[in-house]
Amino acid sequence: MNTLKEKVSNGKMIKIIGAHNGLSAKLAESTGFDAIWASGLEISASHAVPDANILTMTDNLEAARDINKAVSIPVICDCDCDSGYGDINNVAHMIREYESIGVSGVCIEDKPFPKLNSFLGEKQKLENIELFAEKIKVAQETKVNQDFLVIARIEAFIAGQGLEEVLKRAEAYEKAGADALLIHSKKKDASEIYEFCNFYNGDLPIVIVPTTYPDIDLNTLNQLGIRMVIYANHGIRSSVDAMKKTFSNILKNGNTMEVENSISPMAEIFELQGTKNLRTSSAQKQNV
Amino acid sequence: MNTLKEKVSNGKMIKIIGAHNGLSAKLAESTGFDAIWASGLEISASHAVPDANILTMTDNLEAARDINKAVSIPVICDCDCDSGYGDINNVAHMIREYESIGVSGVCIEDKPFPKLNSFLGEKQKLENIELFAEKIKVAQETKVNQDFLVIARIEAFIAGQGLEEVLKRAEAYEKAGADALLIHSKKKDASEIYEFCNFYNGDLPIVIVPTTYPDIDLNTLNQLGIRMVIYANHGIRSSVDAMKKTFSNILKNGNTMEVENSISPMAEIFELQGTKNLRTSSAQKQNV
Amino acid sequence: MNTLKEKVSNGKMIKIIGAHNGLSAKLAESTGFDAIWASGLEISASHAVPDANILTMTDNLEAARDINKAVSIPVICDCDCDSGYGDINNVAHMIREYESIGVSGVCIEDKPFPKLNSFLGEKQKLENIELFAEKIKVAQETKVNQDFLVIARIEAFIAGQGLEEVLKRAEAYEKAGADALLIHSKKKDASEIYEFCNFYNGDLPIVIVPTTYPDIDLNTLNQLGIRMVIYANHGIRSSVDAMKKTFSNILKNGNTMEVENSISPMAEIFELQGTKNLRTSSAQKQNV
Amino acid sequence: MNTLKEKVSNGKMIKIIGAHNGLSAKLAESTGFDAIWASGLEISASHAVPDANILTMTDNLEAARDINKAVSIPVICDCDCDSGYGDINNVAHMIREYESIGVSGVCIEDKPFPKLNSFLGEKQKLENIELFAEKIKVAQETKVNQDFLVIARIEAFIAGQGLEEVLKRAEAYEKAGADALLIHSKKKDASEIYEFCNFYNGDLPIVIVPTTYPDIDLNTLNQLGIRMVIYANHGIRSSVDAMKKTFSNILKNGNTMEVENSISPMAEIFELQGTKNLRTSSAQKQNV
Repeated sequence: MNTLKEKVSNGKMIKIIGAHNGLSAKLAESTGFDAIWASGLEISASHAVPDANILTMTDNLEAARDINKAVSIPVICDCDCDSGYGDINNVAHMIREYESIGVSGVCIEDKPFPKLNSFLGEKQKLENIELFAEKIKVAQETKVNQDFLVIARIEAFIAGQGLEEVLKRAEAYEKAGADALLIHSKKKDASEIYEFCNFYNGDLPIVIVPTTYPDIDLNTLNQLGIRMVIYANHGIRSSVDAMKKTFSNILKNGNTMEVENSISPMAEIFELQGTKNLRTSSAQKQNV
Repeated sequence: MNTLKEKVSNGKMIKIIGAHNGLSAKLAESTGFDAIWASGLEISASHAVPDANILTMTDNLEAARDINKAVSIPVICDCDCDSGYGDINNVAHMIREYESIGVSGVCIEDKPFPKLNSFLGEKQKLENIELFAEKIKVAQETKVNQDFLVIARIEAFIAGQGLEEVLKRAEAYEKAGADALLIHSKKKDASEIYEFCNFYNGDLPIVIVPTTYPDIDLNTLNQLGIRMVIYANHGIRSSVDAMKKTFSNILKNGNTMEVENSISPMAEIFELQGTKNLRTSSAQKQNV
Repeated sequence: MNTLKEKVSNGKMIKIIGAHNGLSAKLAESTGFDAIWASGLEISASHAVPDANILTMTDNLEAARDINKAVSIPVICDCDCDSGYGDINNVAHMIREYESIGVSGVCIEDKPFPKLNSFLGEKQKLENIELFAEKIKVAQETKVNQDFLVIARIEAFIAGQGLEEVLKRAEAYEKAGADALLIHSKKKDASEIYEFCNFYNGDLPIVIVPTTYPDIDLNTLNQLGIRMVIYANHGIRSSVDAMKKTFSNILKNGNTMEVENSISPMAEIFELQGTKNLRTSSAQKQNV
Repeated sequence: MNTLKEKVSNGKMIKIIGAHNGLSAKLAESTGFDAIWASGLEISASHAVPDANILTMTDNLEAARDINKAVSIPVICDCDCDSGYGDINNVAHMIREYESIGVSGVCIEDKPFPKLNSFLGEKQKLENIELFAEKIKVAQETKVNQDFLVIARIEAFIAGQGLEEVLKRAEAYEKAGADALLIHSKKKDASEIYEFCNFYNGDLPIVIVPTTYPDIDLNTLNQLGIRMVIYANHGIRSSVDAMKKTFSNILKNGNTMEVENSISPMAEIFELQGTKNLRTSSAQKQNV
């Protein structure tokens, strides 16, 4: 089941999409994505609370479990694993919990707890580099399954720091045992990503989340040597747009005639729920 | 907060929309609906499991709590309260639990546990009429807040039985203390609803769920004396359609340029999450 | 880890004790028991609700997960798995859920849902024999790990039926694929157990729960060919007795001087919590 | 229900006992205690994890909800509310959550997140005084019910600081709006408590937790002007001692004859579970 590590070494670009519940994950799988990103932003948004460690690890774990049960492709958990929910003991606990639910990896980010979503605020704070490297080390020592990925997410560009700091952190986290590096940027173009890829000479697979630079394409990613791309929030953003339109239309028309044409039929929902897999009791028929 | 009972006696049609999480509920509230239906179908679909009592009361209660926290309009819980999750002791427990989370009411349906979604199967079974009336009675005796609504959902049309059985059950449940009657039909037109409204001469508010007869409009509902209309599943159906299109487009294009135009911007998601309500610490600024 | 099936075939008596949380399970393990019984009675009692399917599968699963995380010996879940929480689809769901949390097996009992604790009431109802055999069959088809035990609990003695019915059910459940048979009796002596063991000529390991016949000893069990004995509720019963005495004493004396001598010291609690396993950050010391 | 604030102003000493689940809370209530302390130490111990913010707010909230449902006396939540689980936004979220489950108050402590149990470690760190005062202010601004108590727990003695620091913090937290002050000490005698009481000239009710100085009696507390005393961990400590003895005895004897005399009878467990409150269906009797 857990083939994400293998996929990474296969050399093909791994296309990953954000999900917030079992349903969105199942749709992503059937569309053909390689893996699911149990997105902290999507999950907090689905609960209508800020992406700022308001949800606890328990809440995020529950969402990740739900997502993982719905699909057979690998699931990577952002899930506000960010910062590991506290100190190194919280990190160890987090790794045990996430590994136990059968997901393929977690991504922790080098910001202090509690964090704020990376696209918000002007002055994001960074975790001390030694402290964060220690978290990665503890995560690696704690995990039982060696295929479980611990991805270190570097927020130095987000925090307004330059390439030098990012490279320094990349080196430190690689040395600490990280399985991959997620280089995050909120620039309108991919220039920071280009910069990093040109100057990084470590061995770890690179992961990006092109939310603010949507035009970057797979060829470019391949040329840059990037191994995983995460489209982190487009599922929930399309849901919001669609529900708004549907809700307004129903209220305006006083019936659902018009929306019937632009929404999935009931049969498709039942299909997604696995209704056809329900068993019929032969004993019940005979006896009751 | 709990004004649903008042709204019912106001005489205006109460327009209710299905939701499956805090986010969809919040969108429904901001669109202008009067109340939220914590939909069993939507909630089970969001977990990608069949609508057949696979989710437990605990799971549904959790979803209802999440929905209720996100909005200030009333929330009615379908949530597979259907059948009360067991016998009269389960019903009493269910009422205490749902009342404790602050929702405005529950809807229980006269099918035996475990149930199957009403739109599925050919031969739905009905709960014994005296047993179900007793459940309503127990629900009413258990509730503390007299504004908490216990809606009895009659599935006799769904089970292929005629008007006579529906009227008999309406009378029995009214006598047992139901606060409203949900008359469910899966015909392609509203003929069963017309029939019932013409022959029912009790005093309870009538609720309908026009999933299979989407053309019924508010004027007609008013003329029939119906008091609440629940659009039970259109939110999640529009989400599914939208996510499928977005996911396919991203995979086809290898980037998110095209979908950016048809999905909600990040700013809207942050707004829905209440990000702007986050407080800024003045102490932290001074000291850290 | 999951060696329960091996232990059963080893030929040594398996001594199992009931637990209701991680702490009681950990105490049982350190005392030397072979396995833990995640007891439905204990778990419902710890929540102060009746043992009558008031707690949902979700609640019981959570308790079982907590118990299983605390120990390395096998855990068998009673946990009101009884009756499988509904029909065959609920059974399949239950098996997937319990298997996913890493426990070693479940015990389901042949009573209809919702059930009442076996020691209560005079006229316990039994599930139809074909229906229950089908549940066992579905459980076996659903499980992935062949070491996962599905124990069929026969309640016919509890329901006031005789040996013939018990033997008939034993045969049917064995044929349906049960991994072991729990023969339950609430007589003041073990006569029903003797009877069954003398006349049963199937091949399944036999499990008993000697709550009402506490004098049965290991020699007798061995002679009867019984393979597992579950002391199902003595942990919580000793807790209740101890807390009552401690609470009364504190209230009477207005201080805790006297109780200090008869309760575990704080150091023992910290030890049980695994406090000494907490890591100390070397990075934190340097930097903060 | 929420009469704790009234009780405080009544002038009688409020005797509070620690609990970790519904059952222990129910025993405390029936013994005659005035209120329940949903103890962070007890709850983490019951899960067999360290008292070091390993359990999340969700876990503690769940335990508090369970406790509160079981009793009608007031419940105060320690529950690792300590430090408010993060920054001021986490505090606001925490207050909304705890208020929503119907408990009477929370106690937050002036240690940074994640914390360690106060009786452990040599060099406990303290939260910055302005930051913590701001948390109290936010808690008070967030709460809806003015009877909900926000108790500020001062850890300066625990951290090895002197009276001056404790008094300074008492003043700051009182000014910030705290409803009561919990002065914590881990000395073998009550000397720090005496000191504080002699020099404090604010108006807030004082709360103590005499774990390490068990000989302090109610007369002394009265003379010192203390208003609430919390016996925080004696319930679980007596449980551990009792279960150890019972488990060893069963294993030694190979039966439960001997322990039967020193544990609560089954009938008492059923009684505590409220079994006698279960309803009997009259409809079921007629029909099935």
